[in-house]
Amino acid sequence: ELVGLAAEIFATGELDGVRVLVTGGPTWEAIDPVRGLTNRSSGKMGYAVAAAAAEAGARAVLVSGPTTLPDPDRVRTVRVVSAREMHDAVMAEIDAADIFVGVAAVADYRPVESAPRKIKKEAERLTLDLVRNPDILADVAKRRPDIYAVGFAAETEDLEARARAKLEAKGLDLVAANLVGRPGSGFEADTNTLLLVDRRGTTELAQAHKTALARILIHEIAQRYHAQGRAQDSRHAHRH
Amino acid sequence: ELVGLAAEIFATGELDGVRVLVTGGPTWEAIDPVRGLTNRSSGKMGYAVAAAAAEAGARAVLVSGPTTLPDPDRVRTVRVVSAREMHDAVMAEIDAADIFVGVAAVADYRPVESAPRKIKKEAERLTLDLVRNPDILADVAKRRPDIYAVGFAAETEDLEARARAKLEAKGLDLVAANLVGRPGSGFEADTNTLLLVDRRGTTELAQAHKTALARILIHEIAQRYHAQGRAQDSRHAHRH
Repeated sequence: ELVGLAAEIFATGELDGVRVLVTGGPTWEAIDPVRGLTNRSSGKMGYAVAAAAAEAGARAVLVSGPTTLPDPDRVRTVRVVSAREMHDAVMAEIDAADIFVGVAAVADYRPVESAPRKIKKEAERLTLDLVRNPDILADVAKRRPDIYAVGFAAETEDLEARARAKLEAKGLDLVAANLVGRPGSGFEADTNTLLLVDRRGTTELAQAHKTALARILIHEIAQRYHAQGRAQDSRHAHRH
Repeated sequence: ELVGLAAEIFATGELDGVRVLVTGGPTWEAIDPVRGLTNRSSGKMGYAVAAAAAEAGARAVLVSGPTTLPDPDRVRTVRVVSAREMHDAVMAEIDAADIFVGVAAVADYRPVESAPRKIKKEAERLTLDLVRNPDILADVAKRRPDIYAVGFAAETEDLEARARAKLEAKGLDLVAANLVGRPGSGFEADTNTLLLVDRRGTTELAQAHKTALARILIHEIAQRYHAQGRAQDSRHAHRH
């Protein structure tokens, strides 16, 4: 009932009928069924963003890597494990989306070989050969240049410069960047801070609980998405 | 209040005043602050075992790798990240424990080098050099041969034979083994099945919710622990 009440309060209608696709959580790249490579992510931020989009009236889909979090209310959740599975799930959903928000911490490399059975190893040293994973954000922007595409960037330094580089390199509309490796920000923490970087400038969102921060982020995205739509409509109008 | 009620119902007193040290969750071996090697584990089983021990009257300590789970009620929880940190935390607590239950999925290898900053990589292929981590279970049994030591084994095949090999190789009193990579068992699932292997034989615990299974496991451990104590007392008595 509290959940229902919160949903009422935050039901801004800013994204009524807009289709929002979100990725969340880590991906897990199997070495064998037990061991793997992963990026640090609890999934909390991606789940909060998907829930906030639904609250704002969006038809929200969440493609999630392995987490212990329950599916967010009123969000269609698709569970995947590896970066390649996440890439395939996103590509299967992307044609039916108006906004894409890539919050997942996707592993950029996977083991060249993955053993179907648990490997018994005794050696003191091992070498693991890795190959690059598909770039989900870049492929989304390539396949749907008209979509409003938001990427996340977890950085340990040069936050704004790296966020801006990511914006350009991947053809995104907005990058939400956070510093990691400090208390109260990123990973398992319940709070986070975000720097929003787009072609108009930089906006700082102060430290807040991930649920609150996700609502502010969705508000910022909704404003930019509708402004872009108006700009396109007006360009379209001028052409006639 | 429901938690309090459950604690009342399951307060068997079987482990009154007994000191139980449990490990749970995965460990995370940093490649850099964002990327790492890990073993699959949600932490649910280890947390349930620590909670069940406390319910049974034990003074329970949980050494946990990174999870999003809340600290179990009435359990002193020590949070760590890597296998080496878990090893140090266990060694700092082990002298004050009567029973050790190693549920954590400890990564057996870590990267030789760990970068303090996020690595920017563009190469199609990479090679990662790994080195063996300390063996927490073996070191517990070596340092405290008198302790009642329980290990977990996640296997994809030959469950009983591998559990028995682990029992002998690491000098444990009991191994709780489960098959992984099947629905309703291990990892992110809420249910699990366990095969208990010790020097007296093999006991199968049927599929159940991890909370229920943990209570049964703690009951089985408590029985064996007290029987061992009686055996030692009676040997001691015969000597006089």
